[in-house]
Amino acid sequence: MGKVLMKGNEAIGEAAVRAGCLNYFAYPITPQSEVAEYLVRRLPEVDGVFLQGESEVAVSYMILGAAAAGARVFTTSSSPGISLMSEGISYMAGMQVPAVFVNIMRGGPGLGGILPSQADYLQATKGIGHGDCRMLVMAPASVQEAVEMTMMAFTLAEKYRNPVMILGDGLIGQMMEPVEFADDFSAQPSDKSDWAVNGMDTRKSDQRNLVRSLYLDPEALNQHNLLLKEKYERMQREDVRFEAYNTDTQYKVLIVSYGTMSRVCRTAIDQLKEQGLEVGLIRPQTVYPFPHEAILKAASKKSCKSVVSIEMSMGQMVEDVQRSVQGHMPVQWYGKCGGEVPTPEEVIAFVESMV
Amino acid sequence: MGKVLMKGNEAIGEAAVRAGCLNYFAYPITPQSEVAEYLVRRLPEVDGVFLQGESEVAVSYMILGAAAAGARVFTTSSSPGISLMSEGISYMAGMQVPAVFVNIMRGGPGLGGILPSQADYLQATKGIGHGDCRMLVMAPASVQEAVEMTMMAFTLAEKYRNPVMILGDGLIGQMMEPVEFADDFSAQPSDKSDWAVNGMDTRKSDQRNLVRSLYLDPEALNQHNLLLKEKYERMQREDVRFEAYNTDTQYKVLIVSYGTMSRVCRTAIDQLKEQGLEVGLIRPQTVYPFPHEAILKAASKKSCKSVVSIEMSMGQMVEDVQRSVQGHMPVQWYGKCGGEVPTPEEVIAFVESMV
Amino acid sequence: MGKVLMKGNEAIGEAAVRAGCLNYFAYPITPQSEVAEYLVRRLPEVDGVFLQGESEVAVSYMILGAAAAGARVFTTSSSPGISLMSEGISYMAGMQVPAVFVNIMRGGPGLGGILPSQADYLQATKGIGHGDCRMLVMAPASVQEAVEMTMMAFTLAEKYRNPVMILGDGLIGQMMEPVEFADDFSAQPSDKSDWAVNGMDTRKSDQRNLVRSLYLDPEALNQHNLLLKEKYERMQREDVRFEAYNTDTQYKVLIVSYGTMSRVCRTAIDQLKEQGLEVGLIRPQTVYPFPHEAILKAASKKSCKSVVSIEMSMGQMVEDVQRSVQGHMPVQWYGKCGGEVPTPEEVIAFVESMV
Amino acid sequence: MGKVLMKGNEAIGEAAVRAGCLNYFAYPITPQSEVAEYLVRRLPEVDGVFLQGESEVAVSYMILGAAAAGARVFTTSSSPGISLMSEGISYMAGMQVPAVFVNIMRGGPGLGGILPSQADYLQATKGIGHGDCRMLVMAPASVQEAVEMTMMAFTLAEKYRNPVMILGDGLIGQMMEPVEFADDFSAQPSDKSDWAVNGMDTRKSDQRNLVRSLYLDPEALNQHNLLLKEKYERMQREDVRFEAYNTDTQYKVLIVSYGTMSRVCRTAIDQLKEQGLEVGLIRPQTVYPFPHEAILKAASKKSCKSVVSIEMSMGQMVEDVQRSVQGHMPVQWYGKCGGEVPTPEEVIAFVESMV
Repeated sequence: MGKVLMKGNEAIGEAAVRAGCLNYFAYPITPQSEVAEYLVRRLPEVDGVFLQGESEVAVSYMILGAAAAGARVFTTSSSPGISLMSEGISYMAGMQVPAVFVNIMRGGPGLGGILPSQADYLQATKGIGHGDCRMLVMAPASVQEAVEMTMMAFTLAEKYRNPVMILGDGLIGQMMEPVEFADDFSAQPSDKSDWAVNGMDTRKSDQRNLVRSLYLDPEALNQHNLLLKEKYERMQREDVRFEAYNTDTQYKVLIVSYGTMSRVCRTAIDQLKEQGLEVGLIRPQTVYPFPHEAILKAASKKSCKSVVSIEMSMGQMVEDVQRSVQGHMPVQWYGKCGGEVPTPEEVIAFVESMV
Repeated sequence: MGKVLMKGNEAIGEAAVRAGCLNYFAYPITPQSEVAEYLVRRLPEVDGVFLQGESEVAVSYMILGAAAAGARVFTTSSSPGISLMSEGISYMAGMQVPAVFVNIMRGGPGLGGILPSQADYLQATKGIGHGDCRMLVMAPASVQEAVEMTMMAFTLAEKYRNPVMILGDGLIGQMMEPVEFADDFSAQPSDKSDWAVNGMDTRKSDQRNLVRSLYLDPEALNQHNLLLKEKYERMQREDVRFEAYNTDTQYKVLIVSYGTMSRVCRTAIDQLKEQGLEVGLIRPQTVYPFPHEAILKAASKKSCKSVVSIEMSMGQMVEDVQRSVQGHMPVQWYGKCGGEVPTPEEVIAFVESMV
Repeated sequence: MGKVLMKGNEAIGEAAVRAGCLNYFAYPITPQSEVAEYLVRRLPEVDGVFLQGESEVAVSYMILGAAAAGARVFTTSSSPGISLMSEGISYMAGMQVPAVFVNIMRGGPGLGGILPSQADYLQATKGIGHGDCRMLVMAPASVQEAVEMTMMAFTLAEKYRNPVMILGDGLIGQMMEPVEFADDFSAQPSDKSDWAVNGMDTRKSDQRNLVRSLYLDPEALNQHNLLLKEKYERMQREDVRFEAYNTDTQYKVLIVSYGTMSRVCRTAIDQLKEQGLEVGLIRPQTVYPFPHEAILKAASKKSCKSVVSIEMSMGQMVEDVQRSVQGHMPVQWYGKCGGEVPTPEEVIAFVESMV
Repeated sequence: MGKVLMKGNEAIGEAAVRAGCLNYFAYPITPQSEVAEYLVRRLPEVDGVFLQGESEVAVSYMILGAAAAGARVFTTSSSPGISLMSEGISYMAGMQVPAVFVNIMRGGPGLGGILPSQADYLQATKGIGHGDCRMLVMAPASVQEAVEMTMMAFTLAEKYRNPVMILGDGLIGQMMEPVEFADDFSAQPSDKSDWAVNGMDTRKSDQRNLVRSLYLDPEALNQHNLLLKEKYERMQREDVRFEAYNTDTQYKVLIVSYGTMSRVCRTAIDQLKEQGLEVGLIRPQTVYPFPHEAILKAASKKSCKSVVSIEMSMGQMVEDVQRSVQGHMPVQWYGKCGGEVPTPEEVIAFVESMV
């Protein structure tokens, strides 16, 4: 199949279908409602189900139920809607059930605005729910990458039996780009007969499975949390993803940036190169687990004098960059949060102010 | 007034009343239901109102409404209940309305257990809601401190026009200790006539006030977020609180620990001192803003060879400690998460393993 | 106290306060929202509580809770809102707790319109909830009567330990009339210590009271229903109220009509009298219990040749009139349902067509 | 296809499937949960959808949505659940959308008991919702009849574009009887393209359909209600159903009874006949529209001296019987309401006391 021109939100919907996810439960919110609009027509063609919940709280528990029963299932929402799902996500992490959450971030806090933002970084990577609860979080920088990450998300969710989030900004959802779907995608749902609840359907299994997050015995709950911790550490070992740009030069400044913001940074880097200033870029593709080692290594290059986290948020990822760099050099933040993406010129001006 | 013996949860309720908070909206959940049990009797004596909401989501918006109208108001809950309030808290941060949230943490994730925990640290300090949303978060280590922090919380919430959280573990809520209420507490509600909604009641004001978090113009939303950012930085400048213990010695190890966990650490430090090993302790009283400078300074002491974050969670505060220490020395984590508080012996064994 | 000019909705609110009802829970809906607007200012003056529920379902259970605890409590709503309370009302009838429901009817079914109507007659008098559930229902024809009935409603609700409804049409709620409040109203809340739940508060009672509607034993449930039936029959014996007009004449036609519709009928009767046609009127003031005997007696007058039920509904009360008249003569219906009140001319034309 | 032995609840589920209804939305409640248990397995076999709503209120609006879109859809519930659907049913009557509601009645009011009852008669036939809102209501007396009525219900709902209810008592739902499904059932969904909303799907229609119950113009709402009234009167003309038993004798007493209660009455009639006392029975199969004429005619038989309504409720259908008989002779009530069905002996004793 060749390339087709698709809006990001629609491409995400199609990607889920290609990944064999036939269950989509959601509640509409700008700027991601096109996913629902696309899937309400597309899912019936493949005998799938789209169901609009009464609220995002309801959606999160519909997701939990389907996931606990072993189905591939996902939802899409935007910032306030994700907050409403945070209890449910914590339950899913505790119950170890796989599911995919797409957050097409808008400006916040509260109602905020409907334009693009990256202001849910800390929520997604640190505090999505109560308890020692983590999601694997991927952040696409193009529609093509949104497609690939969405498809991969189902596989990773099942690998870890854990919620996985696609953290996109409004631009990813709204812009149109040519996109290609892999012909040979074969990551169909894994066998879940050893743990998924089956209603004691003896055609499926003789075994009575139970998923739960309740452990009244403190020793059992501690063991359970050690197991989760080990799982989170395994993500760090096996599934960190990032992209480096212009890092084979003697760059003086290292930018860390993700999502569509990173594309602006690339343009700025290209222009700065023409002006004689080399700047490197590390773009985290997974923001949890975070590419700490790659950033430390890139920041440790002799030529590199300082590091900057460029975000469409008010200083969020910069905390992780600081942890990566471990005090070897100053780490600065530059960003905006309101819906306007900083321009290449603004990025250039800030980087020049650093050197 | 002399000392009285009170359970932590009851003392928190009484403290709120003493601070002039006559509005308490809540939904019951172990291990903090005693606050409601206490206040349902106490509030009518002072013409106050206790209202049980239909759910924690409902409670968060009842809090928002009362706070927007200028009333002192608070709620208490425990981990899953706080997750359900996260959308509302983000709205309150965006709308800049003051209110107090008490989280008597239980084990998680999901349903978890009902025994003490500190597993909501990252949620409270980093990701309580979507958008660039922060709360000032205080963590008491005794019933007396819970009382003082609760009273102070209302003043700080109004100082910053921002939600403030008391982050207690289940032990704080359940244990009985002698407690004294300040006779001269005078921090009565501040004048809010310049911003609180007044229903155009001309007896209160001629002015039509409006609180909102919606800013459709991206430039306006960016300005709004810059104002919030400045507010969060002011918290860092003016309201960091911490306690140091045994830091006037030539300690080899620095413990960072908060809440009741820190009391166990003090016992361990006393016993280690008898054994000839000096260990220092920094106990954050505010966990957001975090005492980065104090920890960096304490860790930089020449005798100090390593730092450990001891938590009833699986490695959460350790991230902030790493950011504080800036790579000057290794930062380790020790903890448990299930309801059992690590014993002094366990702490001693871990510290000894470090040196 | 002299007469004051008040809108019906406001007068109803004031009447409840005068009757010692300090608890008002409601959800806004046209055409009765002025009750809430009035009470939100008035109740605080008497240390009362106004609480807006999350929905009418929520309101009905807030009413149930307050009533079960022995408080005087009431709500106001309009047609769709009352439907949402029907489960709760059935529970209250089953649990035998007193409370007052005001229904300022609008046009239906469904969303209908916001203009006056009497289209909830059958729902109010026959089918308000599942099970053998009845309310005492009073229908005022003037603002003054709305005041008196509202005050009386609390006393009757307590007399029968049963929900009582004020069934008003939108005109009653919206029109302004001079109204006088009785100075000597003394029907303060009755002693409920023998049945109201008291949370085992030993200052109130040593007795553990329980209100419930669950009777799993069929014999017990039958006995319970016999007791309720006896109560409904006692209403029929002791609390039927009606007004007769022009019934001392040799009327040829008997009109049965209630609420503001009956006022139009009186005007029509006066005009018909001038034209030489005598028409009598029975106006039920209670529609449950219904004045069957009065109507039968009035219809049995020798001069009377036919009976008509004139309603702002499509033939609802006519069923009760038919039961009253017992086939002694034809019973017709005349009415409209959409918001326009039939005019005296329309009534005159219909009555003339009957003779 | 021959006869199979089925529980009433299961047979109702199967009947809906046979009638081409592939959408079943419900919320569990005793004594009808077996319908859901049956359909959760059965519907997937025919590509149908079972969806459990968050509450009965939610279910009623899911039904409304599917019905408005032209799908055959039904729900089953029991007394309290039906009360919660009353707002939605009124909306459906106002919007003129067809759907089927099955009420397997339990004892009430309130929570009541879980044993059989007929106590929702008045609610179903008079007051199911606000506004001039009526449902066609059928009451089966056997599992076979429950099957036939369920299948017919979809056709009648579409004939009238109105909600139709199957009013069963708990016995109908719980008992097992041999049942046969018609092989040639051909009443598949009717063409709804002229009114059902189609999302402007041009494959279905070029027409933009709109269903609504809002008519702000009073004249329009009155016209709408006249149209509904005409529809209800057409039900009375065309779809009254009843069964007569032993009415070709010179009976002295006429029993009116429906549902499983009528079967007990038949047994009593047979035994009374042996004792020399003839008693007739009219069993309404539709309770709205009610067989007024049939009852009047049967009661008018010269031999007949009195009429009795025998119900598992506290005097509900007796009101309709009184209206039918029009005072020609006394109408009595006999019944019980708690879960125990009156025995033939009790019926015999009561009838004997009448003569």
